[in-house]
Amino acid sequence: MSEKIHKIKVPIYYEDTDAGGVVYYANYLKYLERARMEFLKDNGVDVIDLHNKGIFFVVSHLEISYKRPARLGDTLMVTTELVELKNASLKIKNQILKDDELIAEAFLTLACIENGKVRRLPEQFRSIFSRV
Amino acid sequence: MSEKIHKIKVPIYYEDTDAGGVVYYANYLKYLERARMEFLKDNGVDVIDLHNKGIFFVVSHLEISYKRPARLGDTLMVTTELVELKNASLKIKNQILKDDELIAEAFLTLACIENGKVRRLPEQFRSIFSRV
Amino acid sequence: MSEKIHKIKVPIYYEDTDAGGVVYYANYLKYLERARMEFLKDNGVDVIDLHNKGIFFVVSHLEISYKRPARLGDTLMVTTELVELKNASLKIKNQILKDDELIAEAFLTLACIENGKVRRLPEQFRSIFSRV
Amino acid sequence: MSEKIHKIKVPIYYEDTDAGGVVYYANYLKYLERARMEFLKDNGVDVIDLHNKGIFFVVSHLEISYKRPARLGDTLMVTTELVELKNASLKIKNQILKDDELIAEAFLTLACIENGKVRRLPEQFRSIFSRV
Repeated sequence: MSEKIHKIKVPIYYEDTDAGGVVYYANYLKYLERARMEFLKDNGVDVIDLHNKGIFFVVSHLEISYKRPARLGDTLMVTTELVELKNASLKIKNQILKDDELIAEAFLTLACIENGKVRRLPEQFRSIFSRV
Repeated sequence: MSEKIHKIKVPIYYEDTDAGGVVYYANYLKYLERARMEFLKDNGVDVIDLHNKGIFFVVSHLEISYKRPARLGDTLMVTTELVELKNASLKIKNQILKDDELIAEAFLTLACIENGKVRRLPEQFRSIFSRV
Repeated sequence: MSEKIHKIKVPIYYEDTDAGGVVYYANYLKYLERARMEFLKDNGVDVIDLHNKGIFFVVSHLEISYKRPARLGDTLMVTTELVELKNASLKIKNQILKDDELIAEAFLTLACIENGKVRRLPEQFRSIFSRV
Repeated sequence: MSEKIHKIKVPIYYEDTDAGGVVYYANYLKYLERARMEFLKDNGVDVIDLHNKGIFFVVSHLEISYKRPARLGDTLMVTTELVELKNASLKIKNQILKDDELIAEAFLTLACIENGKVRRLPEQFRSIFSRV
């Protein structure tokens, strides 16, 4: 299991915000997807290739705490950490930070799906993470 | 060609707005899609069935004028009008209104695509519109 | 506390879906907002008026389970139920259904914010819910 | 007037796509905003500072041609070019490219707004562009 924490940057534009003057709560899930996709890619999982073969990773459960608002012009950092690896799913922890302030924290379960059914994680995928 | 003007209502939520306090400019294109889908359905074109057969309608050109801002809590009306019907495409005019005020006006061309190539509009589709 | 379960309909358009052929996971949070706004309005809370006075309801915690995918052309139903009412926050349960199938289930905490700080729920608001 | 063409990269995630398997047509306007914001920032216009002072740049007119689809996993490039500079507005040309293929091309007019009214472009802004 990975000790390293993966990081991406997310700049906040008007598209991300709402009339409350802050980042709209659903949009954080987009940043989690961006972080997850880059995390998987950087760990050697070719999500696009798997997608083209009909193998998808879908979020089956998500818990998120919104701690502080983020605003237009902010640059956020999203961390991704593998928390648990099972036969057909993985658990991920994400933190969304602005400088050193915690903006939001999420835990989510990702299931591997093929032909509409849960399936074992691809071997390639598992071997990569076990190496870490 | 249709003389009738098709109408749908669009209530504005936080999801639609941005930090400028108004509806985000890209989101109007979502309302145009909603209006278009309901317009086609109400004219007997089963877009979902065609989608499942691999036949898509894609916007190839769009021109939109933003006249006045819309805000949280507004209920907008989107009108759809068939302007031109060709072999493989149609032209649509949309108006987005708040009460009697014009918020935005758009003209767009919709092309019919199958296997990545432009194709004739489905017969069923054409016969329906010619009836009007 | 309300015994009634509030319901809205959500039609699924292309805007809602992703390349996996299903509704994108973040978009369900938009439907929860639509349901919440209509639920509050139908219970006499004028969220727009409060918004214009600088009083906002923000999601501080959210837990969502994704049970089954939804697709283009589906019409979903979103239920909203008040689970708990505190001084400065409320807990809401939402179910997202397609016919009788459970698509997703969410529990979320909504906090009342003014000038960036948590504040008591407006009196008007509390009296309305206590009447039920 | 600027001879230089400003460029940003846009990676395509599930959030960007729809059930047609391609980038959803409204989302390109988000990339245009990202490109525009970075273009203005890189040319010394502090859009965030102006926003906080109540001075906004809003799109008043947009024309976009969709030439080819983009897909999950693509990395797009968005170019921004100043086409015209007037007292209270500017005209921008954007191209969205995938490698050397043109995905979409847009022309848009950006108006400067304060207190809901069109106003002259801020001096700082004009002097910067005239230098180029």
